[in-house]
Amino acid sequence: MKEECGVIGLSGIADAAPLAALGLHALQHRGQESAGIVSRHQGSFFFHRDMGLVAQVFGRGEAGSLPGSAAVGHVRYSGVSANSPANTQPLLGRYAGGEIALAHNGSLADGERLAREIVERGALLQTSSNSEIFLHLLAQRRASSDEEIALVLAEAGASFALVALLGDRLLAARDPWGFRPLALGRLGQGFVVASESCAFDQMGATFEREIAPGELLVIRADAKQPRSLRFGPENPPQAKCLLELIYFARPDSLLFGHTPHLFRLASGKALAREHPAEADLVVAIPDSGVSAAMGYAEELNLPLDRGLIRNHYVGRSFIAPGQPARAAAVRMKNNVVREVVRGKRVVLVDDSLIRGTTTAALGMELRAAGSLEVHLRIACPPTLYPCVYGVDFPNPKELMAHKHPIAEIRSILNMDSLGYLSMEGLVGISPPEERQFCAACWNGEYPAGSRP
Amino acid sequence: MKEECGVIGLSGIADAAPLAALGLHALQHRGQESAGIVSRHQGSFFFHRDMGLVAQVFGRGEAGSLPGSAAVGHVRYSGVSANSPANTQPLLGRYAGGEIALAHNGSLADGERLAREIVERGALLQTSSNSEIFLHLLAQRRASSDEEIALVLAEAGASFALVALLGDRLLAARDPWGFRPLALGRLGQGFVVASESCAFDQMGATFEREIAPGELLVIRADAKQPRSLRFGPENPPQAKCLLELIYFARPDSLLFGHTPHLFRLASGKALAREHPAEADLVVAIPDSGVSAAMGYAEELNLPLDRGLIRNHYVGRSFIAPGQPARAAAVRMKNNVVREVVRGKRVVLVDDSLIRGTTTAALGMELRAAGSLEVHLRIACPPTLYPCVYGVDFPNPKELMAHKHPIAEIRSILNMDSLGYLSMEGLVGISPPEERQFCAACWNGEYPAGSRP
Amino acid sequence: MKEECGVIGLSGIADAAPLAALGLHALQHRGQESAGIVSRHQGSFFFHRDMGLVAQVFGRGEAGSLPGSAAVGHVRYSGVSANSPANTQPLLGRYAGGEIALAHNGSLADGERLAREIVERGALLQTSSNSEIFLHLLAQRRASSDEEIALVLAEAGASFALVALLGDRLLAARDPWGFRPLALGRLGQGFVVASESCAFDQMGATFEREIAPGELLVIRADAKQPRSLRFGPENPPQAKCLLELIYFARPDSLLFGHTPHLFRLASGKALAREHPAEADLVVAIPDSGVSAAMGYAEELNLPLDRGLIRNHYVGRSFIAPGQPARAAAVRMKNNVVREVVRGKRVVLVDDSLIRGTTTAALGMELRAAGSLEVHLRIACPPTLYPCVYGVDFPNPKELMAHKHPIAEIRSILNMDSLGYLSMEGLVGISPPEERQFCAACWNGEYPAGSRP
Amino acid sequence: MKEECGVIGLSGIADAAPLAALGLHALQHRGQESAGIVSRHQGSFFFHRDMGLVAQVFGRGEAGSLPGSAAVGHVRYSGVSANSPANTQPLLGRYAGGEIALAHNGSLADGERLAREIVERGALLQTSSNSEIFLHLLAQRRASSDEEIALVLAEAGASFALVALLGDRLLAARDPWGFRPLALGRLGQGFVVASESCAFDQMGATFEREIAPGELLVIRADAKQPRSLRFGPENPPQAKCLLELIYFARPDSLLFGHTPHLFRLASGKALAREHPAEADLVVAIPDSGVSAAMGYAEELNLPLDRGLIRNHYVGRSFIAPGQPARAAAVRMKNNVVREVVRGKRVVLVDDSLIRGTTTAALGMELRAAGSLEVHLRIACPPTLYPCVYGVDFPNPKELMAHKHPIAEIRSILNMDSLGYLSMEGLVGISPPEERQFCAACWNGEYPAGSRP
Repeated sequence: MKEECGVIGLSGIADAAPLAALGLHALQHRGQESAGIVSRHQGSFFFHRDMGLVAQVFGRGEAGSLPGSAAVGHVRYSGVSANSPANTQPLLGRYAGGEIALAHNGSLADGERLAREIVERGALLQTSSNSEIFLHLLAQRRASSDEEIALVLAEAGASFALVALLGDRLLAARDPWGFRPLALGRLGQGFVVASESCAFDQMGATFEREIAPGELLVIRADAKQPRSLRFGPENPPQAKCLLELIYFARPDSLLFGHTPHLFRLASGKALAREHPAEADLVVAIPDSGVSAAMGYAEELNLPLDRGLIRNHYVGRSFIAPGQPARAAAVRMKNNVVREVVRGKRVVLVDDSLIRGTTTAALGMELRAAGSLEVHLRIACPPTLYPCVYGVDFPNPKELMAHKHPIAEIRSILNMDSLGYLSMEGLVGISPPEERQFCAACWNGEYPAGSRP
Repeated sequence: MKEECGVIGLSGIADAAPLAALGLHALQHRGQESAGIVSRHQGSFFFHRDMGLVAQVFGRGEAGSLPGSAAVGHVRYSGVSANSPANTQPLLGRYAGGEIALAHNGSLADGERLAREIVERGALLQTSSNSEIFLHLLAQRRASSDEEIALVLAEAGASFALVALLGDRLLAARDPWGFRPLALGRLGQGFVVASESCAFDQMGATFEREIAPGELLVIRADAKQPRSLRFGPENPPQAKCLLELIYFARPDSLLFGHTPHLFRLASGKALAREHPAEADLVVAIPDSGVSAAMGYAEELNLPLDRGLIRNHYVGRSFIAPGQPARAAAVRMKNNVVREVVRGKRVVLVDDSLIRGTTTAALGMELRAAGSLEVHLRIACPPTLYPCVYGVDFPNPKELMAHKHPIAEIRSILNMDSLGYLSMEGLVGISPPEERQFCAACWNGEYPAGSRP
Repeated sequence: MKEECGVIGLSGIADAAPLAALGLHALQHRGQESAGIVSRHQGSFFFHRDMGLVAQVFGRGEAGSLPGSAAVGHVRYSGVSANSPANTQPLLGRYAGGEIALAHNGSLADGERLAREIVERGALLQTSSNSEIFLHLLAQRRASSDEEIALVLAEAGASFALVALLGDRLLAARDPWGFRPLALGRLGQGFVVASESCAFDQMGATFEREIAPGELLVIRADAKQPRSLRFGPENPPQAKCLLELIYFARPDSLLFGHTPHLFRLASGKALAREHPAEADLVVAIPDSGVSAAMGYAEELNLPLDRGLIRNHYVGRSFIAPGQPARAAAVRMKNNVVREVVRGKRVVLVDDSLIRGTTTAALGMELRAAGSLEVHLRIACPPTLYPCVYGVDFPNPKELMAHKHPIAEIRSILNMDSLGYLSMEGLVGISPPEERQFCAACWNGEYPAGSRP
Repeated sequence: MKEECGVIGLSGIADAAPLAALGLHALQHRGQESAGIVSRHQGSFFFHRDMGLVAQVFGRGEAGSLPGSAAVGHVRYSGVSANSPANTQPLLGRYAGGEIALAHNGSLADGERLAREIVERGALLQTSSNSEIFLHLLAQRRASSDEEIALVLAEAGASFALVALLGDRLLAARDPWGFRPLALGRLGQGFVVASESCAFDQMGATFEREIAPGELLVIRADAKQPRSLRFGPENPPQAKCLLELIYFARPDSLLFGHTPHLFRLASGKALAREHPAEADLVVAIPDSGVSAAMGYAEELNLPLDRGLIRNHYVGRSFIAPGQPARAAAVRMKNNVVREVVRGKRVVLVDDSLIRGTTTAALGMELRAAGSLEVHLRIACPPTLYPCVYGVDFPNPKELMAHKHPIAEIRSILNMDSLGYLSMEGLVGISPPEERQFCAACWNGEYPAGSRP
């Protein structure tokens, strides 16, 4: 599973682009394929976009040559569109409303239908990214005023969290269901918006609030306050992506009202209550399962130790001839600490189970190192369905829980026991009034339609 | 002065893309900044475009991964648009007429007006290249039939020589004035179009004919013959760019009815008749002035020798501290052969004189090496005006002939005499019925309007 | 502080080089500047060495073109010699004993004296690396037999752990004091030696034993067993580098008789006994302080939580103008989880304190996030002296404990309390018979002489 | 055939390294594989060496960071040693005589014997380049005084032209037979030595004289004059490499008493006298045959025209599938100008004939373009034997004249006639007292022994 993007926007802040690069660095986990920033100075755009990590694209001071006090930035995983320089964002364009730069996180569930309609109206599509669709909708409506822009956003459906520079405005919007996170912060007299609040921490900005589902914020240069407009249906059910909380977001961010580390800690506790284990030791699959494993161990008052060590120098993998490829690849990322696990009944905790191949290999490594039993605990329900709202999934045929009845998975993975956190357990972590989530990948209910 | 582009198109030829790369290599002199090829296979496009020389972009077999029997390619000098990966060609797009790939040589004199109109109609411009304008005109007209496409081309004005893939068609067209060259060739059962015939030689294709001004060729897959359509005004005056013949085109090409080497040889003879010199030796500024110098020497029966040797290992220049920068830079490119020029009265011949700084430095080098006199002969008229039809000129303020009366130039360059070929002499090289050229950079008459 | 190198050697193992690349990947933490492998096949050497991480140097299958069943490999941090391609290892040479390839971890304390003597005897030094000295000593003694080689090693002093290919032999040796680790493993019918046992895990080899201080292992092709020779003084005091255990080695390795993770856990417990704190929460500085923090929390029965989250996408740092540079750089690596630390009295645990600037900044971040108190605990004694045996230290003037009496450090770092683990506490982790360590950086006693 | 190297040395000249880079650029034709400069400042060496052209290695001002008023530099073709960064020159070393930097053009015919002896004396060879042998001879003799150095040079045999920095001295020497060129120039108060005088022109220095065979020049910092020492046998026969004059050296240099352009012009005239042709047109194979073709045409009063045009954008070659590979590769480099050669009896002139494949292909291209006859004229004798003195030859089995009796070659190449310049004709270009050349590749007589 791969998140598709992270976005950032700044307004009213001197030297906006170098700060945007700092903020994008904090959002690096949301997209490692390309990075880009567009700044605005005296009515003109300046941009730098390239393939690579933020530190590669902006590490030699490239942002210093992008002047101005407003900027938008983007980190990207390829998602549905091909991996090509032409698809790096922010996108740039010129239309009847002026020159625009736009960065988008999400995936338009109705993207192909919208593209067809746009083309039929006489437009020219130049990328395979459905982020371009926003620009064409604006162009064809000649949308210029804040209200016109809000109307266009309502047409786009779900999902999106986007930022854009247009004239002297910084725009920021979340779709009406609120699938993707987007937050507002302050830095001095200016404003920042970012996919996650960890970008604010990196920049020295302060978190103000999350942008609401169906809200368009318009921040004019030198504005004292953003202007807020609502678009889309009245009070649609919200559909915050639970994968953000359990998997994608940085543990130290603040989004959908939660700190992901604490949410994951709570998920581990709930998991322990639902699926306790008679064991000597709790071991996390690092780094993804660390927070849930802490909660699991705490709830059952079991010792937690570092039975697996992650090697952070991961690059392109290289396999030696004659080596069992899977074993070598797994060890390249994680290695067992024999002295910790030997002779122990181990509970292995992770945040999710997708294909299951890595987890199976780790189980074998633990047994080879002398673990007496291995009990697998997964801090979310079985993953069964693909996402159409911006998360890149493997083909459903590769999903372990899609291929096999839950009863078989334990035996395929060769675990002594297996427990998944239930949907009720997961959703129950939030206070009752905030339990409006998208759980399509687990229950197949697609809140904004467009079931694949 | 820099040419802006070279284009190539193939249809009905197996493994079209690798052949296109070979052909682009032969057109390398028309653009060294980027190279790109789009091929079509079973209704889909495949592309590879990048910054760099053809041998850098396609030298490791990259074209081999572009399948299909039709392709268009492009080499590019940046021209009016910014140097950025997004501006590499061929351009790709999807519109109501289907998916299109287009490569363009030239510059639309009315580009900015057309861009404004396109935007006003609700379109989104995504590059600063005016090649994109063709795609928008096609999209807004929903042009699909050959005739509709021809109508759109008539709207575009001058100047262009373009190739495009659309559906199962290869399109090739020259603007009604014929500023830029474009020729048709055959390879086996298939067809090739290219900016210059030297690309045919490289590919093993045979030259068929030049595409006519105002002609659109439509070559369907497996067509026995191209279909020819006319567009634009009836019989407009032609305006073939004379700089192509005297400066840009490869000496071994065939274009505008001439072999450039022979045209330049004739220009040297005409120059000799207009401005003979009492001298001992004719020396060319290599490689630009070699053909003209041969003609000059032959006409006056003077010896021609290699008084200047060009160093072909030219890269980024690097200047040593304390060195007269201009002298070092000039010597990095050309060095005097002392034993050849010492004690001689030398006629120095070049094809044109733009800023004059290099020529002045070479004159000094010749005198320092012992030349008794240096007589400069230029095989075209004084260059006074910029080009709006696709040649990148220095700012007029930097043109030697624009800054100074002709009478002063000789003394500024410190030459013993100076002679420019007259317009009559230059045009007189062609047979009377073919003397319709663009000479705007010398006489300020802009055949297709849009005087800057 | 930077470790200087990691080494690996294989013998009697088909496709040795690709396996060596896998093993070097596991040793990546010991040197990130360059990587190299030399293999031997039918009496000839094949090599590939370059600047960069193992995954960069060998990630496209480069090791596959190095044939043979014996290989030596190296990862390197520059240490005392300049950062230049010429200094990548393994070194290659030809001398009277044959062709040799050598890889070295350590730093010869008497390197400069040895270099002078070598040169006086008529030799030519070609690098600034003192690894070259081994080759010259071998060449000048024309050392060929195992015994002659052992005599040369005795001359070299400390410190070294080295591997070499010479004729059909793989050599592996540790200096008589045993400063640097080196272990022997088995893979099928063949043998592997490596700086740390984590390389064996990665390759699927099994740990056999540590090579003893003053031991030279000679492994001939197809040998059933290595031959072991002793060199150097009889039973010198051992001087195992304690920094390997508390700082450099991977937590999951086995060296000097310890699993570093467990050693660090024990150091945290000892620290807790010596310097308990009245606090609500223990927080590790990730990843270096994680194991010690676990021990600290366990010993005092305090909660341990993730108050700091490490961003593993660290590259070249880039600082925004107007940002407090130190704060931005610190946050680029670690970010505070506000909800965890707010309103808490925090014990911050790390494995060592060198310059102190990062630690001071993290303390400020914790207070800014609402921590009521911050108590710093360091799991080793105050670092006062440089290393001459192979660890790259900052200038002593930059060492916090060198510049300030311990009493002042607490106030400079703005901590509520500060505790260092005592030397006795640290050494006491090992059983009494194994307490022979080098602690020169804390107590200034240099076991093999050459005090700086 | 490939020249192996070019060298340059400067002394007493401020900012020596940037000037050395300029000079190396002028010597680029002598080696395109790597470039390097070592400068000396206040007793220390500074260096930059890398793979690539001079403009690539020094094009971003790299030489500006090499301080000092003395420098040596090198451009290299790999020759006998492997292509590897470790073999870039100048070589650096430290021995009893001090720190030394050395750059070498040539190849030691007795290199392998010398290497064996050096190793037997207890030395360590670290490269496969025989340039390293000079350093070992100096080291083993502890050579320090000028006289001691001269004695060491006498031991080395042939062939070499070398420059070195040692202490405050710049050394420059040619072997006693004088195979390779080396000249002395002046720049302000300082001195320059270079393989060819074209480097002086580029730097603004003046040619003083050629360094004599068997001469060692010692130039101390701030010396008014170089000190000259003689070494080697008294008055050995000289053996200047004729390939330098007819093939390698830049036409505008001055070496072995000749300007190569004029020597080649004379060779063409001699060739015309020996092998006239009844023809309409003389065509050169560019650029190698241009000067000889001018002489041939002038002697016979035949027209000379540009029947072949060279494409200077040559890079890695890429061949299209289904293309006759040889034809495409030939056309990538040279293209026929049809209008020039059609209907003509052509004399094709080149400076030498090695494998003959390219020449045969060009002959076919000329006939395909309509030439009635093609007569080949080669401005040197048949090439039969390899070089052991520093020119990289194809395997003798690939030499056309080695494989076939001269009588057959004409028919294999499909020429109407074929003429080689005789040895007498070639040598006769020089005045009688200067006719001491190495002609081993034509007559198999190896002047300094070591016949392969």
